[in-house]
Amino acid sequence: MDIQQYMNTVGTSARTASRAMTRASAGDKNRALQAIAEALHADREAILEANQHDLEQARQGELDAALVDRLELTAGRFDDMVAGLEQVAALPDPVGAITDLNYRPSGIQVGRMRVPLGVVGIIYESRPNVTVDAAALCLKSGNAAILRGGSEALRSNQAIAACVRRGLTEAGLPEDAVQVLDTSDRDAVGELIGHPDYADVIVPRGGKGLIERISRDARVPVIKHLDGNCHVYIDDQADLDKAVRIAVNAKTQRYGTCNTLETLLLAREVAGRVLPELADQYRQAGVELRGCDESRALVPDMAAASETDWAEEYLAPVLAVRVVTDLDEAMDHIRSYGSGHTESIVTEHYSRARRFLAEVDSSSVMVNASTRFADGFEYGLGAEIGVSTDKLHARGPVGLEGLTSQKWVVLGDGEIRQ
Amino acid sequence: MDIQQYMNTVGTSARTASRAMTRASAGDKNRALQAIAEALHADREAILEANQHDLEQARQGELDAALVDRLELTAGRFDDMVAGLEQVAALPDPVGAITDLNYRPSGIQVGRMRVPLGVVGIIYESRPNVTVDAAALCLKSGNAAILRGGSEALRSNQAIAACVRRGLTEAGLPEDAVQVLDTSDRDAVGELIGHPDYADVIVPRGGKGLIERISRDARVPVIKHLDGNCHVYIDDQADLDKAVRIAVNAKTQRYGTCNTLETLLLAREVAGRVLPELADQYRQAGVELRGCDESRALVPDMAAASETDWAEEYLAPVLAVRVVTDLDEAMDHIRSYGSGHTESIVTEHYSRARRFLAEVDSSSVMVNASTRFADGFEYGLGAEIGVSTDKLHARGPVGLEGLTSQKWVVLGDGEIRQ
Repeated sequence: MDIQQYMNTVGTSARTASRAMTRASAGDKNRALQAIAEALHADREAILEANQHDLEQARQGELDAALVDRLELTAGRFDDMVAGLEQVAALPDPVGAITDLNYRPSGIQVGRMRVPLGVVGIIYESRPNVTVDAAALCLKSGNAAILRGGSEALRSNQAIAACVRRGLTEAGLPEDAVQVLDTSDRDAVGELIGHPDYADVIVPRGGKGLIERISRDARVPVIKHLDGNCHVYIDDQADLDKAVRIAVNAKTQRYGTCNTLETLLLAREVAGRVLPELADQYRQAGVELRGCDESRALVPDMAAASETDWAEEYLAPVLAVRVVTDLDEAMDHIRSYGSGHTESIVTEHYSRARRFLAEVDSSSVMVNASTRFADGFEYGLGAEIGVSTDKLHARGPVGLEGLTSQKWVVLGDGEIRQ
Repeated sequence: MDIQQYMNTVGTSARTASRAMTRASAGDKNRALQAIAEALHADREAILEANQHDLEQARQGELDAALVDRLELTAGRFDDMVAGLEQVAALPDPVGAITDLNYRPSGIQVGRMRVPLGVVGIIYESRPNVTVDAAALCLKSGNAAILRGGSEALRSNQAIAACVRRGLTEAGLPEDAVQVLDTSDRDAVGELIGHPDYADVIVPRGGKGLIERISRDARVPVIKHLDGNCHVYIDDQADLDKAVRIAVNAKTQRYGTCNTLETLLLAREVAGRVLPELADQYRQAGVELRGCDESRALVPDMAAASETDWAEEYLAPVLAVRVVTDLDEAMDHIRSYGSGHTESIVTEHYSRARRFLAEVDSSSVMVNASTRFADGFEYGLGAEIGVSTDKLHARGPVGLEGLTSQKWVVLGDGEIRQ
């Protein structure tokens, strides 16, 4: 296969399809989502069989166990994937919404209209259900999509892609509105991220290495999600019941997610009253603690934290613990070691809560709540294409709105500029 | 001067200053703007003298006449520059505004808070008044700024920079919140656009060549403004009085601006009734017309347009003219040749107006209004740091909002994720 030529065809078709998608009504788009769900139901056996092929091959290869696990389409995952289509269909259509349409002194009316970005490129690994999720979100937001899954999931993704195409066609939308690359050639990624005429934005989903590589090489803007080194700070004016509840939940509710607590900061004045209790609960949950000297004086069986622990995104049952003097020292620590993802303060002190919200430069800042709330569903976005650790365009959980842009609309009656 | 080391110092100081700027109150920022205005008044003679030095040197060099003109700080330009500071002070402070703070089923309250981007790098040419404009907008939006003016304006810019520093210090803000680079070494630009730790966004202001070069080489996100090849389409259902008024104003009100009309499209059915009248008015204004064959049949003294004319941003009293069949052909032409800046339809036909607004993919789309309205002041932004032809983050005229981001804020009462 000539990859350059293949990607040129894909890019050109996507661009053409995106023009029809911009005009597609909410009704058409929802009908397509429904038709895709029906096609997936109809092809269920064939898709699961393709997935079994991928799994067998993956197990023979050198893929690590976690990747193989994510690759598997269990019955439950299949049903969730189909249910996701209905959830996206139920979301309001963002396209065409006009906001703030106001008269100006010149007589013109000026507002902003939400519009699709055009073509969205999504690069992901392993999990075949992302193919459906990503297709649904791009479709609903009026974009065309170029999806590039991992080579280990090629058969699964192609079986799903056939259903997506059928659904689009049945709803009268162009089948090229969602193209799933039919190659595992790595050069295809280079072509995709190197051509602003193919895609308007790239959303990489995967490990930090993949995302850093894509961000570095891309000539197309990237909505990127690097690491989530999240903090909870227990202030000396905290309600200690809330503090324990939040610190335990933020760490133990799930270990592998980007909004999981990785470093716990405690004000010196309350550390002695709260850390032993917390250490008990963490011990029961099987969480390994790594602390500063002061923490270890309070909880003697704690391991010593080294400088690298403060910067680590463990994604595992390990937690770094540090005693600080006050809010300022806590915010200094977060500034030095944090990744700008999500931080929470536990306090009943009004002004400190306000300062924390205003001064901590992270995509989510919280008062008296678990960091685990930082995701698109919990925030009410309905669905999530990813989490952005960038500041421009989209920040934090990215839903349909992050896949759109706003253009200016001007309504006049023959006005001219003086 | 060791440029790498110099830029490292500048970048580090900017980052430190940006933390204080994030916290600065609207009152402090407005006091600084006022103090800068007073410092400029006090140093007026010294600044104009520095500008005379720059002008003399520029005239001896090989700078083209337009650049030399823009370099000059006339008395009027000086007064406008100072008045601009008061206008920015009068704008509402965008920082800290929280929108859409709503309760979620989990009990948490979720909203978004507008926050500064951090450090803004601005690269511009010739006009020393940009130093003050850009400083004012960055300051008001709570950002630190690194300003890199043209080497031809170095003395003027340094004289202005001294006033900006004094104003900041008098208001109790860090003087490094606005740094004007004190070197004309080109490597400084490379260092600035190559270090995401120095700046969070780059705004280049200047010719297309400069902006393309910066966009290509930057490792920091760029808010870029390429060309403005703007169109007016006169529909066969247009009110022809409005059509003539708009088409003349859009071309002749100013020639060198990015929102100036460059190609006029006319529906065949009305071309014969409106083009001769338009041609008369353009002739009187000294505008050269370059038309398609059909246009030339209606206005015989018109020059023939070549393929390159359709893509040209003349920035001059030249206008391309083309007769088209209908709205679809007009939109096809715009799609093929336009630059996505600003397009206007003149029509009384409701559905065509609606289609044009929805389907034309430009940063500003207008009905029955002159393209010359596409700017920050006319849109009510109060001031403008530039015009973006990108789709991500900021699109069209960019005011204070484009220099900010939104982070998520979560207010809880001990809620944890189930």
